Amino acid sequence: MSIGRPLANYAAFRRVGDWVFASGVIAVDPSAGVVVTGYGQLPAAARQQLQTLGYDTGQLSVDVFEAPAVAQSWFVLDRISAIAQENGGSLDHVVRLVQYLRDLRHYPAYNRVRGLFFPQPVVSTVVEVSRMLPSDEVLVEVEATFYLGR
Amino acid sequence: MSIGRPLANYAAFRRVGDWVFASGVIAVDPSAGVVVTGYGQLPAAARQQLQTLGYDTGQLSVDVFEAPAVAQSWFVLDRISAIAQENGGSLDHVVRLVQYLRDLRHYPAYNRVRGLFFPQPVVSTVVEVSRMLPSDEVLVEVEATFYLGR
Amino acid sequence: MSIGRPLANYAAFRRVGDWVFASGVIAVDPSAGVVVTGYGQLPAAARQQLQTLGYDTGQLSVDVFEAPAVAQSWFVLDRISAIAQENGGSLDHVVRLVQYLRDLRHYPAYNRVRGLFFPQPVVSTVVEVSRMLPSDEVLVEVEATFYLGR
Amino acid sequence: MSIGRPLANYAAFRRVGDWVFASGVIAVDPSAGVVVTGYGQLPAAARQQLQTLGYDTGQLSVDVFEAPAVAQSWFVLDRISAIAQENGGSLDHVVRLVQYLRDLRHYPAYNRVRGLFFPQPVVSTVVEVSRMLPSDEVLVEVEATFYLGR
Amino acid sequence: MSIGRPLANYAAFRRVGDWVFASGVIAVDPSAGVVVTGYGQLPAAARQQLQTLGYDTGQLSVDVFEAPAVAQSWFVLDRISAIAQENGGSLDHVVRLVQYLRDLRHYPAYNRVRGLFFPQPVVSTVVEVSRMLPSDEVLVEVEATFYLGR
Amino acid sequence: MSIGRPLANYAAFRRVGDWVFASGVIAVDPSAGVVVTGYGQLPAAARQQLQTLGYDTGQLSVDVFEAPAVAQSWFVLDRISAIAQENGGSLDHVVRLVQYLRDLRHYPAYNRVRGLFFPQPVVSTVVEVSRMLPSDEVLVEVEATFYLGR
Amino acid sequence: MSIGRPLANYAAFRRVGDWVFASGVIAVDPSAGVVVTGYGQLPAAARQQLQTLGYDTGQLSVDVFEAPAVAQSWFVLDRISAIAQENGGSLDHVVRLVQYLRDLRHYPAYNRVRGLFFPQPVVSTVVEVSRMLPSDEVLVEVEATFYLGR
Amino acid sequence: MSIGRPLANYAAFRRVGDWVFASGVIAVDPSAGVVVTGYGQLPAAARQQLQTLGYDTGQLSVDVFEAPAVAQSWFVLDRISAIAQENGGSLDHVVRLVQYLRDLRHYPAYNRVRGLFFPQPVVSTVVEVSRMLPSDEVLVEVEATFYLGR
Amino acid sequence: MSIGRPLANYAAFRRVGDWVFASGVIAVDPSAGVVVTGYGQLPAAARQQLQTLGYDTGQLSVDVFEAPAVAQSWFVLDRISAIAQENGGSLDHVVRLVQYLRDLRHYPAYNRVRGLFFPQPVVSTVVEVSRMLPSDEVLVEVEATFYLGR
Amino acid sequence: MSIGRPLANYAAFRRVGDWVFASGVIAVDPSAGVVVTGYGQLPAAARQQLQTLGYDTGQLSVDVFEAPAVAQSWFVLDRISAIAQENGGSLDHVVRLVQYLRDLRHYPAYNRVRGLFFPQPVVSTVVEVSRMLPSDEVLVEVEATFYLGR
Amino acid sequence: MSIGRPLANYAAFRRVGDWVFASGVIAVDPSAGVVVTGYGQLPAAARQQLQTLGYDTGQLSVDVFEAPAVAQSWFVLDRISAIAQENGGSLDHVVRLVQYLRDLRHYPAYNRVRGLFFPQPVVSTVVEVSRMLPSDEVLVEVEATFYLGR
Amino acid sequence: MSIGRPLANYAAFRRVGDWVFASGVIAVDPSAGVVVTGYGQLPAAARQQLQTLGYDTGQLSVDVFEAPAVAQSWFVLDRISAIAQENGGSLDHVVRLVQYLRDLRHYPAYNRVRGLFFPQPVVSTVVEVSRMLPSDEVLVEVEATFYLGR
Repeated sequence: MSIGRPLANYAAFRRVGDWVFASGVIAVDPSAGVVVTGYGQLPAAARQQLQTLGYDTGQLSVDVFEAPAVAQSWFVLDRISAIAQENGGSLDHVVRLVQYLRDLRHYPAYNRVRGLFFPQPVVSTVVEVSRMLPSDEVLVEVEATFYLGR
Repeated sequence: MSIGRPLANYAAFRRVGDWVFASGVIAVDPSAGVVVTGYGQLPAAARQQLQTLGYDTGQLSVDVFEAPAVAQSWFVLDRISAIAQENGGSLDHVVRLVQYLRDLRHYPAYNRVRGLFFPQPVVSTVVEVSRMLPSDEVLVEVEATFYLGR
Repeated sequence: MSIGRPLANYAAFRRVGDWVFASGVIAVDPSAGVVVTGYGQLPAAARQQLQTLGYDTGQLSVDVFEAPAVAQSWFVLDRISAIAQENGGSLDHVVRLVQYLRDLRHYPAYNRVRGLFFPQPVVSTVVEVSRMLPSDEVLVEVEATFYLGR
Repeated sequence: MSIGRPLANYAAFRRVGDWVFASGVIAVDPSAGVVVTGYGQLPAAARQQLQTLGYDTGQLSVDVFEAPAVAQSWFVLDRISAIAQENGGSLDHVVRLVQYLRDLRHYPAYNRVRGLFFPQPVVSTVVEVSRMLPSDEVLVEVEATFYLGR
Repeated sequence: MSIGRPLANYAAFRRVGDWVFASGVIAVDPSAGVVVTGYGQLPAAARQQLQTLGYDTGQLSVDVFEAPAVAQSWFVLDRISAIAQENGGSLDHVVRLVQYLRDLRHYPAYNRVRGLFFPQPVVSTVVEVSRMLPSDEVLVEVEATFYLGR
Repeated sequence: MSIGRPLANYAAFRRVGDWVFASGVIAVDPSAGVVVTGYGQLPAAARQQLQTLGYDTGQLSVDVFEAPAVAQSWFVLDRISAIAQENGGSLDHVVRLVQYLRDLRHYPAYNRVRGLFFPQPVVSTVVEVSRMLPSDEVLVEVEATFYLGR
Repeated sequence: MSIGRPLANYAAFRRVGDWVFASGVIAVDPSAGVVVTGYGQLPAAARQQLQTLGYDTGQLSVDVFEAPAVAQSWFVLDRISAIAQENGGSLDHVVRLVQYLRDLRHYPAYNRVRGLFFPQPVVSTVVEVSRMLPSDEVLVEVEATFYLGR
Repeated sequence: MSIGRPLANYAAFRRVGDWVFASGVIAVDPSAGVVVTGYGQLPAAARQQLQTLGYDTGQLSVDVFEAPAVAQSWFVLDRISAIAQENGGSLDHVVRLVQYLRDLRHYPAYNRVRGLFFPQPVVSTVVEVSRMLPSDEVLVEVEATFYLGR
Repeated sequence: MSIGRPLANYAAFRRVGDWVFASGVIAVDPSAGVVVTGYGQLPAAARQQLQTLGYDTGQLSVDVFEAPAVAQSWFVLDRISAIAQENGGSLDHVVRLVQYLRDLRHYPAYNRVRGLFFPQPVVSTVVEVSRMLPSDEVLVEVEATFYLGR
Repeated sequence: MSIGRPLANYAAFRRVGDWVFASGVIAVDPSAGVVVTGYGQLPAAARQQLQTLGYDTGQLSVDVFEAPAVAQSWFVLDRISAIAQENGGSLDHVVRLVQYLRDLRHYPAYNRVRGLFFPQPVVSTVVEVSRMLPSDEVLVEVEATFYLGR
Repeated sequence: MSIGRPLANYAAFRRVGDWVFASGVIAVDPSAGVVVTGYGQLPAAARQQLQTLGYDTGQLSVDVFEAPAVAQSWFVLDRISAIAQENGGSLDHVVRLVQYLRDLRHYPAYNRVRGLFFPQPVVSTVVEVSRMLPSDEVLVEVEATFYLGR
Repeated sequence: MSIGRPLANYAAFRRVGDWVFASGVIAVDPSAGVVVTGYGQLPAAARQQLQTLGYDTGQLSVDVFEAPAVAQSWFVLDRISAIAQENGGSLDHVVRLVQYLRDLRHYPAYNRVRGLFFPQPVVSTVVEVSRMLPSDEVLVEVEATFYLGR
């Protein structure tokens, strides 16, 4: 068994044989310790991907409503991809995602962004919950389970 | 690994060896694309079963309050049974259910219906969440994990 | 496969090979059938542990706000430890915790109490949900998965 | 004219010739002065009757939602039966019931319990009101009119 | 004593000598089992009557606000008239109406429609209640007492 | 049959043989057309009676909370007494009161005032409703039934 | 260019060639400085017109709900007619009305009153807004644009 | 001056010389008299246009949140285009749009759809209002002014 | 026709002959892209003007309540003045202002600031709306129409 | 300087020369540690006093609304009297009371009870606050200052 | 010790040596017994003072929002000044003010008015409370302590 | 008499002989003019003290809930200590604290921090109020009275 990078007093993931169990991932930039709420907190390549979906328009009155959920969706799924890679796998090895949203009206945005990471259908559960850690700004939390075996 | 029937862009389930991970199931009739809200959307055999529990009374003022949760409970658990069968198993192979309800006052009804499907106790987590996809009419969502091995 | 102690119509846990899947645990004293809401419902040793964290102060105006969440946190995690032991394991064998809170403002208390049980980081997902069974007094529910192998 | 047993400053009923007018009845145990909220406050025979309807299950998470309305329904209708008997009649002599509920979602339960007392249809008005005396725990109040003549 | 037409498990009315006690009447079309919410569910003659009051304008933005309460008022009072006739009487024999409305702002409409049925003043109690059976669409319920003597 | 004084398009009461059915009475001064909200709208003798109960204190901060419900209670019950007298009876002939309150916290005041009019227990139903006609200022409505026979 | 009668620090209207732009008109009696809330604040001729529509019934429980919106509608449209006349025109010269209501349930009443002033269809926008100046009593505000040219 | 097609008792537009003033347009299909809430109520060409923006995905859980605002936006702007054409002009002749939304979170969708109709910037005011006629389903209302000169 | 400075995809104004139609103006600093919420975002001359009205006091507990609405009022009206000047006119050429406020309690402040810009009465409509673009911080939006002709 | 009896970590009072400053007093029985909510928690003599005011009626539906505030008022003022006596004074030495109520509708009851303790007027401030320690059951808190000098 | 003018059953102030403790002062005109809500209830000199601050504008839409808090602030502080003078002192002898506001958004107005009475800084505590006696119209209550000694 | 440091237009304290009356203190850093909301705004020594209580954990999900109230509590009590020292005294000279909290759930934290400053019990009143100056971020306000005499 190996233990993932501890952030505070929880483990990012735990590996048991070919299985990897990840903690729920939210969009907090670990270096700055702040919740991601805008496109400016994403790398340039991410922004280009999101623009192909029609997001990150540069128009204030549009982005103000879409940016938090879109940017968090990208950040969270990118982090799950990184966990897979740390364990020698990829997103193909995801066997289930449990996705918690603060407002299901953000689902269309989350769903489009997820399509960038998962071109194939994925086993998915989605529910709207009241709040997530560490603050009300968090809109998306995703818990992933991986099987790295053949 | 085999992939279950994709509905939209998620997979109904994913099989990994003897394990099957199912997506959260809700009571949407896949052909009609509408949420189940009444007894009339269930097969006749289901209605007879529910009548043994005292539901599906035919009295408008009774059924109006009970039908949505009761009918969805039956539909969802029946679908989980179908997933087990598609994989050559049965509900005996369920190792855990996570059950999301929009209003825990529906739990007594759900619990009675579950007794029709699971005569033996099952590992179960139940929480009330704010909402589920695709609409406010959804009252029950169940996520199942199966182990088909010996 | 072995089946854990049934409480009502669900199983406390289900063992599949080296894996144990537990139902969500809440702080209901099984003998009395009442939700734990105060320090007086805990054993003396638990109270001494909690006092080392600064809880269980004996001051009414302090304990009235902290006791329900603190006492439930201890009770729930102690019960999860007992499930591990019933299966010949310990909390070291937990591979994931999903933790449902009714109010995330209780997280700091829960987190301190968890530190008593888990000196090492644990894979953890935390969300705030609307309610849990069997009543509004329940503030914490924890679902655990164990791997007892190696 | 005869006057029924006064509880506090109102009369339980008033008889005028063959007519009996009863005050609204709620489920307060007159000896203990507390509102009925659980099955444990009912006589054993009542509980057996309710179990034939599928209530009084002994499962905490089910009974917690159903017990208050079911137990009050039985208690209230039993008291109305007693008023009829005090006047030399039976529930066959009821000519009208006005039924006040705090939450119409309790109607299905009330309706099933009423079926135990009134196998024949009865003249009935049902409305949901904001509150009843003496406290928010009261869920059902029933006002009966009897005609004892032929 | 005669018993009126049973709808579900209650009696529409009960006759005791010259007295008739009716159950609360709401605007549910007994054949279709749906609540009346528009002018289209009324007979042509009713619509002509309502047009003399300025209702049933054919303008969508006007009717959308007025139709449910106006149509239900007509339907309910027409049904009470039918009960009188079944017993060999007429609305002249009504000795009291108890009228429950979900929103007293509908009273002006109800009052105008009642004028079509009761050209003479009638003994009347009106209160606003929270809800009525079988659903939130019900805006008006009327309970009538008749004396057919004299 | 005789018809009571019509106020607007309803009858204050209707007499049928020895029976009198009254409409719900609220505290509107018929001459001024305004709802009673203070002690100043009552006759001097009423105020003296209320002072024996400790009401009508002359202290602004006390009366502001109590005056509306107390004064309306007196006004309404006095009007019911007048209806009895118009029919050659008295409050002894009341066989049932149905009492609607906008806020049950006004019940203690209403109950004390009723004691002034009804020294003997009376058949009584009390429920809290959302609103009454003609305005939100109305806190109490009482519907009485009288039997004037021996 | 001419400037209309200033009330406080705004102009009632401004004329530019054949065009007249009016400020939003609300039903405040300029001499008394109070918002119109009842029929008694209208001239006798207005009341006769409104009675042809079935309003101004003289029944307290009806008028209390309808009078404020009906009377304000008449007042506001009459004032707009006056502005047209001050500029040598009539309501035929209105090219657009923007109508703000505090509650769209008042639209049917407003619409009937407008029919008295505009027998022909008029270009019209209607929205419900949160509040208007100078107080919560204002239910209708209408902004008119006129073209007085041929 | 010419008068546009009257729908009920208002005019769709009024022409004054080179100016056209339109009433606020909402997405009600005039033939069916129902509010547009889904893509199925739009012509095929419209749906193809919307798909280029990433809307009308065919996925129930996505479309359920986006369809009402997107489809209404297209419908309303298409109708404004038709008004321009009826007067011999085009959308190039729009000099100002006033846009009322029930929820500004729909602005990003509206804005993208408007880009299909107005490739050039347009003079625009956008506010969120409480409600619009004829029902709560209306999410977008647009009032246009045109100058057809030069 | 000339087109004003486009900010995002709308035009600041459109000129048609002697007429100028401006988009609704809100207090967003175009360079920084942030909503004005304090005095520090205004030029020094503006602050001096506001101090003559008693605003911009330098006392934190006073300014915290007044600064957002006062500063936005100044910013918005200054921008409208600039639009007039860009077209060779001045605020004297304004023929109508439509003013949207998020809370009418800000009207006194807005009104005082407007007096700095418009010493003469102006044609004015004021309504309170739910929200404005791009965020909840926006308290004032003003739409102006100008006629630059003689 | 002397220090009063400490309850938890605050002092009941502090004496400075002839001055005594008391902590806010609430109705918690120090031995049992529970908030006073009924007459049964008061000594017999207190109940007799309260009955002279018309309270402690023995009628459940009356006392349920009045008992908590009345009993707390007596308890709190009695405790303040005891503090005076511990310091060799009486309630005559109170120079100011600051009284916090959770609901000012309890003021009439508090005021009558205070009259039992303070036959002379007392310097008094009364405000309604959101909550008090240690729980939502606390309805009254009184802070007293005494001067024991001549 | 001297006792101030009693209004109802509390004392306006109590003097103890050089100290004066005043009850909380609210703006109720003692002769009329009504809460001050407008400028018209103030003396002419007060209004002139307030006009120097820019209040009491004579514009209905401005004064309607500001008058209640401004007029109450003046009235309350003027009354505190009178208490000082009754005791041979002035506002210079105030050692502390505790100020309760129903809405802190009124603080800027209160603060400006206080500057008229206290040119020097004063020891001050300000909190927002839920309500004050005798009614919801009261927006400001001030409790003063004076030391008249050297 | 001496006057404390004025911040804005109030005095921090006023000394009268051996007495010092302080204004309510809130946690605003006077140099920066911002409310204290985190541990980072406290000196290092304060943070070490708070860590002995288990606060300032460095874990984002814990500190986010606790930091604002804990840090404000330290800041406010430290400032009160400074006022004592400015007057040649210490916290031993505090004779009364009135403590206003926005949410009593912060009391346990405040109470622990107060223990750092007051090892001995202190005369204390605690109430929850709606808001404090200058903003909603303020959670704690403390008003102190000192006696510096023997």
